[in-house]
Amino acid sequence: MLELYHAEPVANSVKVLICLKEKQLEFVSHYVNLLLGEQHEPGYLAINPNGIVPTLIHDGNTITESSIINEYLDETFPTPPLRPASPVERARMRTWTKYVDDYFGPAASRIGWHFLLHPIASRWTAQERERRLSRIPMQDRREKWATVAGRSFSPEQLSEARAQVAEGVRRMESFLQRDGWIAGGAFSLADIAGYCVAPGLARLAPDLVNEQTTPKLLSWLRAMNERPAVRAALAMPNKVPETLQALGLGGTLPAPVKTRSDT
Amino acid sequence: MLELYHAEPVANSVKVLICLKEKQLEFVSHYVNLLLGEQHEPGYLAINPNGIVPTLIHDGNTITESSIINEYLDETFPTPPLRPASPVERARMRTWTKYVDDYFGPAASRIGWHFLLHPIASRWTAQERERRLSRIPMQDRREKWATVAGRSFSPEQLSEARAQVAEGVRRMESFLQRDGWIAGGAFSLADIAGYCVAPGLARLAPDLVNEQTTPKLLSWLRAMNERPAVRAALAMPNKVPETLQALGLGGTLPAPVKTRSDT
Repeated sequence: MLELYHAEPVANSVKVLICLKEKQLEFVSHYVNLLLGEQHEPGYLAINPNGIVPTLIHDGNTITESSIINEYLDETFPTPPLRPASPVERARMRTWTKYVDDYFGPAASRIGWHFLLHPIASRWTAQERERRLSRIPMQDRREKWATVAGRSFSPEQLSEARAQVAEGVRRMESFLQRDGWIAGGAFSLADIAGYCVAPGLARLAPDLVNEQTTPKLLSWLRAMNERPAVRAALAMPNKVPETLQALGLGGTLPAPVKTRSDT
Repeated sequence: MLELYHAEPVANSVKVLICLKEKQLEFVSHYVNLLLGEQHEPGYLAINPNGIVPTLIHDGNTITESSIINEYLDETFPTPPLRPASPVERARMRTWTKYVDDYFGPAASRIGWHFLLHPIASRWTAQERERRLSRIPMQDRREKWATVAGRSFSPEQLSEARAQVAEGVRRMESFLQRDGWIAGGAFSLADIAGYCVAPGLARLAPDLVNEQTTPKLLSWLRAMNERPAVRAALAMPNKVPETLQALGLGGTLPAPVKTRSDT
């Protein structure tokens, strides 16, 4: 019996959803609404004391951290294999998934938080802000929420994040040019990790991702979008639009703040 | 043919050295003197463009990041196995090695940088500071070096780091109480990762690590110190004392700055 606690099919949640769908595994889905802070409520903290998604529960064992969950799924349900067979390519896969976890993902996430969560969190009353921040267990996340509940990231911080996204895009394009897939000649967990950042970039950063600069990344993205598992993952619930509507933020999101590299 | 670029046998360097010694693998050792900034010199950057140690080269393939190197070594040279056989315990092992990489290690490292590198870097001339910082490729490392070259971390930042070390110690003690080793009933890469932070704590933070509070951690540490592979790793070159001497910092290091949790 598999249960997954996850949010909408983007970022770290889509990473595990694609892996489950590639392996055609049945699982009980529990949607955690991050915009409403459900990941910090006592019920969820009893499941994952770090207050982050996704969390996998398999036969009573709790596995956290999306990259670790995906290796666990590949070891436990080896068909189809989603890790390269050779140790060198596996190391490449892990170097990339770690880079996505440590740099590429957080940089994209900083920009996402600014545009999606700052409009929500900045409207909290002082009392609500205090209450919400106090129950966030991880210090780095608490600081990130405090930032978007306040003035959000500075133009310099957003510009830095953008530079890191640009670096991630450059690396991805060079790996794809070399081998066709991110960690070798076959689709792997490295591609799934890349997909938790890449889909929005052509729209959000057309100067970084376009047919001239990143032809391989775009053809890879088209191939990814055609995979039945990716389609099935993207068809999972997404409550972001209705939540924004309910919060009175249903119109267009605020216009992007200019960052240094935009000007 | 195996070659390892590494520093003295502590932190991420000792992690890979212990793994190589457990597997009784022959390797060519290249010492990189971090106190002199050799990791940022062009020769080393050609080997590892991120300018961090350790780096493994095996039959022409370059593998970076200590946790990834150790999984690579265990996949390539499976005897003796250093990862648990069960996927659940492997996931525990990876959760711990990731936690050491992301939180426990960096927190201990912040304190180490303050006491070891701030005395060195704060004596650089403005010109030398500029030259040294400009060649550091990773932004987060560049900022860390700029901090220790300036006023170093604030008492609040050191206090935060100390609280994170305390949390790591609590986790380690609870895992050891449960199973005897960090990720289950047998020695694994998780224990090797713990050893890259734990050895200095009884001396540096006797209020956190002592016979009353952390009996399991201390008996685990004694067992670790008796392993032939650990002894062999610790016998590898350590140029820190002679480098400090050469820099005119051979005496006692500056007295610890009081942090909030000390007062």
